Amino acid sequence: MTIDRIEADYLIETSFPPEAAAESMAGEQSSGTFLAIPGETPELKARAAARVERLEVLGDAAAPSLPGSGSPRSASEPRRVTANVTLSWPVSNLGPSLPNLVATVAGNLFELKQFSGLRLLDIRMPAAFADAYQGPQFGIDGTRRLAGVEGAPILGTIIKPSVGFGPEETAALVERLALAGIDFIKDDELQSDGPHCPFDERARAVMAVINDVAQRTGKKAMFAFNLTGNLDQMKHRHDLVQSLGGTCIMAGLNSVGLVGMIELRRHSALPIHAHRNGWGYLSRHPMLGWSYIAWQKIWRLAGADHMHVNGLRNKFAESDDSVIASAQACLTPMFPAKPCIVMPVFSSGQTARQAPDTYRRLRSLDLIYLAGGGIMAHPGGPAGGLASIRESWEAAIANVPLEVYSRDHTALAQALETFPS
Amino acid sequence: MTIDRIEADYLIETSFPPEAAAESMAGEQSSGTFLAIPGETPELKARAAARVERLEVLGDAAAPSLPGSGSPRSASEPRRVTANVTLSWPVSNLGPSLPNLVATVAGNLFELKQFSGLRLLDIRMPAAFADAYQGPQFGIDGTRRLAGVEGAPILGTIIKPSVGFGPEETAALVERLALAGIDFIKDDELQSDGPHCPFDERARAVMAVINDVAQRTGKKAMFAFNLTGNLDQMKHRHDLVQSLGGTCIMAGLNSVGLVGMIELRRHSALPIHAHRNGWGYLSRHPMLGWSYIAWQKIWRLAGADHMHVNGLRNKFAESDDSVIASAQACLTPMFPAKPCIVMPVFSSGQTARQAPDTYRRLRSLDLIYLAGGGIMAHPGGPAGGLASIRESWEAAIANVPLEVYSRDHTALAQALETFPS
Repeated sequence: MTIDRIEADYLIETSFPPEAAAESMAGEQSSGTFLAIPGETPELKARAAARVERLEVLGDAAAPSLPGSGSPRSASEPRRVTANVTLSWPVSNLGPSLPNLVATVAGNLFELKQFSGLRLLDIRMPAAFADAYQGPQFGIDGTRRLAGVEGAPILGTIIKPSVGFGPEETAALVERLALAGIDFIKDDELQSDGPHCPFDERARAVMAVINDVAQRTGKKAMFAFNLTGNLDQMKHRHDLVQSLGGTCIMAGLNSVGLVGMIELRRHSALPIHAHRNGWGYLSRHPMLGWSYIAWQKIWRLAGADHMHVNGLRNKFAESDDSVIASAQACLTPMFPAKPCIVMPVFSSGQTARQAPDTYRRLRSLDLIYLAGGGIMAHPGGPAGGLASIRESWEAAIANVPLEVYSRDHTALAQALETFPS
Repeated sequence: MTIDRIEADYLIETSFPPEAAAESMAGEQSSGTFLAIPGETPELKARAAARVERLEVLGDAAAPSLPGSGSPRSASEPRRVTANVTLSWPVSNLGPSLPNLVATVAGNLFELKQFSGLRLLDIRMPAAFADAYQGPQFGIDGTRRLAGVEGAPILGTIIKPSVGFGPEETAALVERLALAGIDFIKDDELQSDGPHCPFDERARAVMAVINDVAQRTGKKAMFAFNLTGNLDQMKHRHDLVQSLGGTCIMAGLNSVGLVGMIELRRHSALPIHAHRNGWGYLSRHPMLGWSYIAWQKIWRLAGADHMHVNGLRNKFAESDDSVIASAQACLTPMFPAKPCIVMPVFSSGQTARQAPDTYRRLRSLDLIYLAGGGIMAHPGGPAGGLASIRESWEAAIANVPLEVYSRDHTALAQALETFPS
């Protein structure tokens, strides 16, 4: 990539000649219009035009993946193909601005009639973007330091039920978990400031027990308080958590949006746990929307410290390959001078069962591993559930099969019985 | 709808028994978890549970629309159906918070394995939401007052090329358009603050000519300056536009996000022209994502004054029926005490051709009608292009066919020749 151009990779499906279709993307997202315009000059267009850098036809597509696409007027037998396309833009079209980058690489083009499929696969930004945004403040090292966990994944859980608990019920559960020695607990993404569980009361009740347990045991659980809300609410809630000795905040990326995240990062003195709920509507059709590889870069540069990536054998529709690719992306540097590495968060239907495969495939311990029912519904209670997951990670690191390791590790043995594969 | 519950309508596709699938949505988005949790009680669950209010099976679906869906374990021959489902939530789960509403009605559920298709069709909010957000500040009446247009659509254009022009080239084109008597001009969504066309310089150059023409002719064009950016940038740019006598600002909704829009509304003293670029990735697959009916309600309550709805016979993949339904939604009250009516913006491949059908189908003149090439590429120049569109709306309102009206209206006649149907 030349130093001053933005690049984006797309998967397209089109019955138009693919070169012409790719040029229509470039035109729509830069100096194009559907008719020649007075005042346009070749110099102007050349200065601002997006370029088709690469085009690779992958193969034939049978039926159109998406409705509404047109056909070229002159071709008697249009052939529909899929292709990989890379476009580039001069950064001088927009400057190093994340909100305007989104409009440029992911704007109107998904609606173009030329395409019966169009998905954004990846984005590469010039270094000017690294200078313009803060990126993660804590990342892996800062999170480990605050959580007091080295040499192992950060093990955690989610407060369930998602909604229904009040502050005292939440705090009572947190106390059990903290006494069990848990590293990390998070609010559910549905729980921010409901009248039955107001944020401020919950934060005070939860931090009272976390601080108390920390004094007694020396282990201070990191609690990610979901402060998703309007900007003033989020700032107030952040300040409250900080004043109470809390060590993490959480926000829903699709709820707050890019400006909300950028502002939260500017204000925050705590790690930002970024929830991706709503990700399905951005990604679930394979010929539409965003790949996680592209999407997570926006939020890492904006300032997320932890990014959700789903989990292996999860309760959702996503494949294990996709989950691992997402987590690897979070651990891959974005810029030489500002790598923006964030902790991938594995979550959704996780128990002691998935640790070995997670480690085998990711080859890293830099992750947050969240189990809800896998900890809470263990026959030994939260302490047993947590122990079972610690033991499963020990087994994974030692490359010992779970069934073998469980012979002299009771909590793990109970987990394998309770949560069949 | 009971007064204290949020409702959302969905289109689903599932091979599970549809009742069970609907219950899984309700569980995932409220008090559910995949295993029973200590501390849960029937009272807690009942207080917070989402309810399936309605379920209507529509018919059979052949192949799954989306990958990754599972099948029920016990059914030997699963039947795949589509259905309409309405869920409701107690507002006390989240309080009247738009960011948390999005997490509740459009969170994790799109990824659930039970579904091979899931689309959010509509949202109904209790009145508490109307009290919590400002809604549009100007809407139809305020926009008409500032634009000086009554009894007709607001006619406008987009500065093209999208990127490439500098401030002086932009201002020169604006002067031609303003002298032609145009009502409205907007920046392209790709043009905010690029180094070749810095926002501040562009605003100063454009407002100088708009103010100058207004002094000479008495007609002051409304220019929607695209201030999309970080929050401090947007506030600065708004203040500059206001200080220069400008009458409109513009932001990309998918670029700034919900918190950005809420903050912009709080700060703004000008109408907010809301661009929807990126809408395709949210909506183009008919069994995934958001319908515009649901989506536009979020942004209207957050404070948009003008909402883009595409246009008839547009250059994109959207059908005319969908465009009209979107525009009608913008003109439909949201709350008795706070209707939040916004001006629908028709745009994309519009010329004099589409005015009669637009009026016939919408039965309203409360709209902004934008033509790019349809004004700029008219043989009579921008003045001729604008005249042709005015004449086409006169014909539409008088219910006279364009071909008839064009006999003694030259600009319209030239448009019909230049832009074949």
